[in-house]
Amino acid sequence: MGFIDIKNQPPFKFSVAQLHDYQTEFGELMVQINVAYETYGTLNAQGTNAILLCHALTGDAHASDDANGTGWWEPLVGPHRTIDTTRYYVICMNVLGGCSGTTGPASIKPYSDQVYGQTYPVITIRDMVHVQYRVLQQLGVKQLHAVIGGSMGGMQALEWSIMYPDIVEHAVIIAANAEFSAMGLAYNEVMRQAITSDPEYADGNYANLGKFPENGMRIARMVGMITYRTAKLFDERFGRSFSDQHLFDPEVGRYLRYQGDKFLARFDPQSYLTLLRAMDLHDIGTERGGISEAFKKIRAELLWIGIRDDLLYPPEKIRETVAKAQANGVIASFAEIDSDYGHDAFLLEFEQLEALISPFINQLYLGEQAL
Amino acid sequence: MGFIDIKNQPPFKFSVAQLHDYQTEFGELMVQINVAYETYGTLNAQGTNAILLCHALTGDAHASDDANGTGWWEPLVGPHRTIDTTRYYVICMNVLGGCSGTTGPASIKPYSDQVYGQTYPVITIRDMVHVQYRVLQQLGVKQLHAVIGGSMGGMQALEWSIMYPDIVEHAVIIAANAEFSAMGLAYNEVMRQAITSDPEYADGNYANLGKFPENGMRIARMVGMITYRTAKLFDERFGRSFSDQHLFDPEVGRYLRYQGDKFLARFDPQSYLTLLRAMDLHDIGTERGGISEAFKKIRAELLWIGIRDDLLYPPEKIRETVAKAQANGVIASFAEIDSDYGHDAFLLEFEQLEALISPFINQLYLGEQAL
Repeated sequence: MGFIDIKNQPPFKFSVAQLHDYQTEFGELMVQINVAYETYGTLNAQGTNAILLCHALTGDAHASDDANGTGWWEPLVGPHRTIDTTRYYVICMNVLGGCSGTTGPASIKPYSDQVYGQTYPVITIRDMVHVQYRVLQQLGVKQLHAVIGGSMGGMQALEWSIMYPDIVEHAVIIAANAEFSAMGLAYNEVMRQAITSDPEYADGNYANLGKFPENGMRIARMVGMITYRTAKLFDERFGRSFSDQHLFDPEVGRYLRYQGDKFLARFDPQSYLTLLRAMDLHDIGTERGGISEAFKKIRAELLWIGIRDDLLYPPEKIRETVAKAQANGVIASFAEIDSDYGHDAFLLEFEQLEALISPFINQLYLGEQAL
Repeated sequence: MGFIDIKNQPPFKFSVAQLHDYQTEFGELMVQINVAYETYGTLNAQGTNAILLCHALTGDAHASDDANGTGWWEPLVGPHRTIDTTRYYVICMNVLGGCSGTTGPASIKPYSDQVYGQTYPVITIRDMVHVQYRVLQQLGVKQLHAVIGGSMGGMQALEWSIMYPDIVEHAVIIAANAEFSAMGLAYNEVMRQAITSDPEYADGNYANLGKFPENGMRIARMVGMITYRTAKLFDERFGRSFSDQHLFDPEVGRYLRYQGDKFLARFDPQSYLTLLRAMDLHDIGTERGGISEAFKKIRAELLWIGIRDDLLYPPEKIRETVAKAQANGVIASFAEIDSDYGHDAFLLEFEQLEALISPFINQLYLGEQAL
């Protein structure tokens, strides 16, 4: 059995792993899942030199440069870079529910000629991790030297350390916390309303009807962009400039609309809604007796990185979480990135990221080399 | 000449002043403007005991309690309250461009049988102030003991002190700054997109077509509500509660939708857009050679009040502005309200507001009484 997924192809080459009969956390059976992934470097014979990169809400499997061009973490991933592909076997997968090669709402539903759309199951961060685990098994990975991610990717990295404590040695959790905040839920609700109230959304059946909720998606992306940046950045970059051609059109508004328009071409609305819901449901304490109990399962060493002025994941709240992790026996450290970018710094402040991540993931490995 | 404005009636009684032939800052002639206002207390013979209250974006002329029920600043305005109506003659007017009695986009356009809609002129904060000035002239007011406002009302209070320096004795500017910020412009753009991209907006002609952009207005209000509150408040009030009936529906989302739905009944979309644009254009330095030059016109004593964690008007930015005002010869003081409400504290933290405003507006007046 091999369903061809014609509607769900990102503009780069990738490998595809096939999984069968995966049951989601909420009990839905998915008879086949395709998982798009890229790898860089070579797995060692023991299967222990792997590093898994987990992408954020609108990311994809294309983390680094190769024949496909630049990836989202390219300055950090490659030969002799922070995540050194001459030493490590690096894997990045498009998440379950995504729209860049992995089976998601824009994929053709098995035994049908229509896309999943609104019939796609509710997915959790834990579902994403379980699926990644099964792909790693196929690839022969026995240990994860590190699992690393920012924002929704950080949620996955944290869940990895809890769900598969014997496999994860290091986890780097950037701009994410142990649970999604009420303010995060609030912004997600606005984005969800923008998309679902667009008549072109057609109750989620837009793809099969040849429609697309452009206006809703544009507004959702504009809201997202505001939360990913800071007031200081907008002040410095746009200030109170208004377009000459349109006297009353502020430049910052034009920028947001431009970002919204760019987004339309590359993301599926129902996939976006699916991932928003996964973020909403992120709470490591769920079904585990609370956050402290969840922390007690962790065996990996954790590095948490917060970003100053991150509207969605304030570093002072992450710091509190790290203290709670430590109080529950986790070897965890915290560092803060100083950036005017705000939340998006995890995709932009590569020098600071390198300075924090490189010692954390490379010292032990280099130590082992020296033995 | 007296146009009857059947479409633009708030649910309380108010007085109406009529102005003729007002030319807006951008040069459009309005042949008639109705201004809805309420007054409390009695004007003295010299016309010098007046206090003008300026309302915020979605406010109205109904500031205090009377036969109409509770107003938006009722705990502060009344007999023997902070703004003591046994001493002061208090006036509050619905702003030009509003939708609660004053001529706005939902009003019938003169010499037509249709509402203004998208043909309503671009309005500035300064237009609002000029119109208020002309109404005060009709009422016999010679001096303003104080002009007081929060948010968009604070912009008006500040412009009053610059535009009519010989009339204003005290100005209280709460949760507002000398110019609207890039982040404010960004949020306004999202709200504008939400409304104008709703097909029911019909390019601004919805009212004449019997339509109403409910979805856009709901989303705009949801965005607004997020910016008026704080992460801490949402954390404490809603946390990560999800509705039992709808497993994946966060309570904070339900709350925002509820606020959005409530808003539909009481605000006109084109009026909202008109006032957003007025806020966008707020910059006391425009056409005055910059902010410092604008400050040099002020003769009133200023009290600026910032609110901790105000996302739109951070108190540290207001403090910088107050220093600039002082450097340009303005007698200005700054105080900060400590509140988890964020921006909306100017409508909620009455005890703190009283403690700051009462000495500022009452000490001099009481001093005069004692002479």
